[in-house]
Amino acid sequence: MSTTNHVAVYELLAEYGALIDAAKFDEWLDLFAEECRYQIVPRENYDRGLPAALMFCDSRAVLEDRIRALREANKYNIHTDRHIIGLPRIFDDGLAVEAPFALYQTDQEGETRLFATGLYQDQLEPGEHGLKIRDKLILLDTFAVSSLLATPL
Amino acid sequence: MSTTNHVAVYELLAEYGALIDAAKFDEWLDLFAEECRYQIVPRENYDRGLPAALMFCDSRAVLEDRIRALREANKYNIHTDRHIIGLPRIFDDGLAVEAPFALYQTDQEGETRLFATGLYQDQLEPGEHGLKIRDKLILLDTFAVSSLLATPL
Amino acid sequence: MSTTNHVAVYELLAEYGALIDAAKFDEWLDLFAEECRYQIVPRENYDRGLPAALMFCDSRAVLEDRIRALREANKYNIHTDRHIIGLPRIFDDGLAVEAPFALYQTDQEGETRLFATGLYQDQLEPGEHGLKIRDKLILLDTFAVSSLLATPL
Repeated sequence: MSTTNHVAVYELLAEYGALIDAAKFDEWLDLFAEECRYQIVPRENYDRGLPAALMFCDSRAVLEDRIRALREANKYNIHTDRHIIGLPRIFDDGLAVEAPFALYQTDQEGETRLFATGLYQDQLEPGEHGLKIRDKLILLDTFAVSSLLATPL
Repeated sequence: MSTTNHVAVYELLAEYGALIDAAKFDEWLDLFAEECRYQIVPRENYDRGLPAALMFCDSRAVLEDRIRALREANKYNIHTDRHIIGLPRIFDDGLAVEAPFALYQTDQEGETRLFATGLYQDQLEPGEHGLKIRDKLILLDTFAVSSLLATPL
Repeated sequence: MSTTNHVAVYELLAEYGALIDAAKFDEWLDLFAEECRYQIVPRENYDRGLPAALMFCDSRAVLEDRIRALREANKYNIHTDRHIIGLPRIFDDGLAVEAPFALYQTDQEGETRLFATGLYQDQLEPGEHGLKIRDKLILLDTFAVSSLLATPL
């Protein structure tokens, strides 16, 4: 695999987290391919082959709708996010990637807490303007969270 | 942008965190250009355009002075740091970078706690001995911290 | 140093963490060279030159034995791990690397907590099937942990 591919994947992951943290959700949506899937599954369910997802969007339109709803809900749960994405593993000539993440949230009093950890499993596709996310599976370690769907993970 | 630039920027960020964690502050200062700026601003203030910085050094001499003061203060607040710097975004042909970070501190009882999270926004310049930091803006998520200026962030 | 080396080292680190997190300990063991050393040392001891290691394996056979024992013990301490490995520093033409890490554990109630932070200091060697770990020194920031040896770090 070429090194260039690696760097492009690192960039895409970094952008993914940074755009959520900056609340730039339109730009964030642009990271997804026209035909895409986005789901959040508790790791335990996934390991046991149970289908139950905490969030399941099987098209970009559904994902857009969902994000719009979250932004509305966020007016009542004001916080900021910070994603720390660790070193990723890259497969399939740069078209699949797994990356561990930790998500921190800071409340209006300025206190920061770990919100959740998990693993991104992404399928990518090359597009005219660089790599896009075709399928994002978020395996969530933490399911004892108080306010799960405050922002996308 | 060339991949080499990316790797050089990754290295600089890694070195930045590692040198603080190892308490090698002289080497850490050497990462900055002769003419440099270093500031810590609560993210909320920054987003609202408020100028108030938690720390503001507009020259390397001021930064050196400040670090010396922190080291003195640290004799009364003994702890160790650990920076985890997440995947960064690189702009401007490798001369600007944004990276999320989490800083953990461990006290003398060996207990580790999250101290703060935030985002580095760095302007770099090429020098004879590699990249140097010309302007470091640290957007701090966490401002409800008990002992903010124990070490540089 | 070539960029390719960097990427190979990033991959090895990512794989190291991911294989523990996925409880794939046989594959994890395969990351080590035939002749290898693995040790966990509290950072404070290391800084003072004290020899006491929390775990010390000076051959792969000992490491394999140790891992087998941990897996047995884990039946009574059911949890999952998540390693977040931050940007690393690479030395010696890609044959030495230092990387900060944070390890989170999630219990059966789905609650995630920081378990420990520290620094990996690895000596690598090139092999037929890529880089292998010859010597892994884990400097552990956190030693006030309740159940230290639940899984390898």
